[in-house]
Amino acid sequence: MSKVGIVGSGSWATALAKLLTDNEHAINWWFRNSNSIEHFKLRGHNPRYLSKSFFDISKITFSDSIHFVIDNSDILLIATPSAYVNDALNDLPKDIFKDKKIISAVKGILPEKTELLHEYLQREFNFPLEKYFTVLGPCHAEEVAAEKLSYLTFSGTDESEVQAIAAFFQTAYLNTRTNSDVIGVQYAAVLKNIYALGAGIAHGLDYGDNFLSVYIANAADEMVHFLKKLSVHQNDCTNPKYASSVYLGDLLVTCYSLYSRNRMFGTMIGKGYSVKAAQLELNMVAEGYNASKCIFDINEKINADTPIVNTVYEILWNNATAEIAFSQLESLLH
Amino acid sequence: MSKVGIVGSGSWATALAKLLTDNEHAINWWFRNSNSIEHFKLRGHNPRYLSKSFFDISKITFSDSIHFVIDNSDILLIATPSAYVNDALNDLPKDIFKDKKIISAVKGILPEKTELLHEYLQREFNFPLEKYFTVLGPCHAEEVAAEKLSYLTFSGTDESEVQAIAAFFQTAYLNTRTNSDVIGVQYAAVLKNIYALGAGIAHGLDYGDNFLSVYIANAADEMVHFLKKLSVHQNDCTNPKYASSVYLGDLLVTCYSLYSRNRMFGTMIGKGYSVKAAQLELNMVAEGYNASKCIFDINEKINADTPIVNTVYEILWNNATAEIAFSQLESLLH
Repeated sequence: MSKVGIVGSGSWATALAKLLTDNEHAINWWFRNSNSIEHFKLRGHNPRYLSKSFFDISKITFSDSIHFVIDNSDILLIATPSAYVNDALNDLPKDIFKDKKIISAVKGILPEKTELLHEYLQREFNFPLEKYFTVLGPCHAEEVAAEKLSYLTFSGTDESEVQAIAAFFQTAYLNTRTNSDVIGVQYAAVLKNIYALGAGIAHGLDYGDNFLSVYIANAADEMVHFLKKLSVHQNDCTNPKYASSVYLGDLLVTCYSLYSRNRMFGTMIGKGYSVKAAQLELNMVAEGYNASKCIFDINEKINADTPIVNTVYEILWNNATAEIAFSQLESLLH
Repeated sequence: MSKVGIVGSGSWATALAKLLTDNEHAINWWFRNSNSIEHFKLRGHNPRYLSKSFFDISKITFSDSIHFVIDNSDILLIATPSAYVNDALNDLPKDIFKDKKIISAVKGILPEKTELLHEYLQREFNFPLEKYFTVLGPCHAEEVAAEKLSYLTFSGTDESEVQAIAAFFQTAYLNTRTNSDVIGVQYAAVLKNIYALGAGIAHGLDYGDNFLSVYIANAADEMVHFLKKLSVHQNDCTNPKYASSVYLGDLLVTCYSLYSRNRMFGTMIGKGYSVKAAQLELNMVAEGYNASKCIFDINEKINADTPIVNTVYEILWNNATAEIAFSQLESLLH
């Protein structure tokens, strides 16, 4: 039986750990902070995230050594924010992932070199795409904690491998779906953060529900257009169903949720805060902020028509006035 | 200069009248109730709907005679609930619409014979599709009243005619778009009421945001699938962009808005009210209720794969238990 090791200890990592242990799987789990491990062992829950979810501790081998977790696991589940991946993995031996499988739960682009996780792993560890999988979809960690029915989509190049991976996570309150568009789904996850940030800007500028629905419909269209352009260039995207949960569903939950950090960040920008002030006030950087620059740069190569990404980019990175940039966008929506 | 006559005096008719008069057009306006006309003339606003919107009365010729309004107008804007169309028009002379154009703002199927408005007009008045246009899109009347930027899509078989019609409504706070899919957009408007009613049922059954986003993404997919099946049969649907405001946008605003009557009706069903009790409590019939039966019947001919419509239909018309029907739907969502 394969054993899963989790790299990451935030709310999303905790939700995924809950799925695995509720599904009776023993796991290894890396925490950078050994105090958190002591608390978790003593009290049965993560002290900082989803702290109302209690775990069967007998199923978890905690370690503050990432080496130990990787060495003792067959499958590594990477579930940190994209900005922390490099820091967590960079000093590891180059052959440490040999014969392992990796599942990415990372929802952004690694900022250092504008790379998706599989590109980083390929470059740094010569890790093959065939052993790389993603778990993505419209899934607030809080609703997983509350055991509200949710859907996650697992992607990878080998359909039967993907289904075996997905089976680890299937529980009474979590339905799994699979596809082979392992690169497209990652871009969809990155794009949706930009669109949600833009939805926040629109909200901050006092646009109403009618406009927001037009904006999000156009964002869905722009996402599909970008992914199709991309697959023409990459040629590894087998007929994905874009109006399914991992594409459109994730866009919807991120744009409409008032708890979305990207949306909240955008709302502050729309209300006139500077990027710096919004970051200080919220004490975090929204994934969509870096993502807008990364996608803008990547799009120099594939030349997709992306008026919404461009608008968000110009506001966040080029000092465009939100009100003027959005008034220019208005005429481009259909 | 063409003159527009409005048939209907509810909130949506009032919002459209505001667009026309704000755009400096003189209009004829039929009110069944002459007391409302007196009030409107005296106070400058519709006493019952959007009553905070004040009008330039000099631009409006009111009449309680539908004959007068039709005879003195070149373009008739029909803006009543679908259930009242037959009652309003049925006794009119069969040649009364000769040489007129008709714009439909009706968002449902006429229940008597399961007909869209153009089918009813064709059968009763021999009215040609070439002179028939629709105005649809994600547009709460309340936000038009508040002059929040909104988008409406005008559809018709002749592109230049459609653009001329749309120009009547274009104002600073209303962007118009056009397409030629005059039948598809009507079906989209009908379907979205069913999906919003189902979203309400899901909400009433205590599903969360994660599930709702999966449900709506699948509804979007089902809608496109239905429209494509339909256009194969009707062959008059020229490459519509389904992820635009009149299709996906309208679905989103209807499913997500807490003010949607279809959603509210569905929520009561999800909480265990009977159809009868929900109707009595809300003092209205949601468009999605009849629509679910009409679309179910129409689909007997075109055989689209419509698990969501079927689920809503079974709950509302066949006494299926909402909880069981939705638990069966869960496995069909992707």
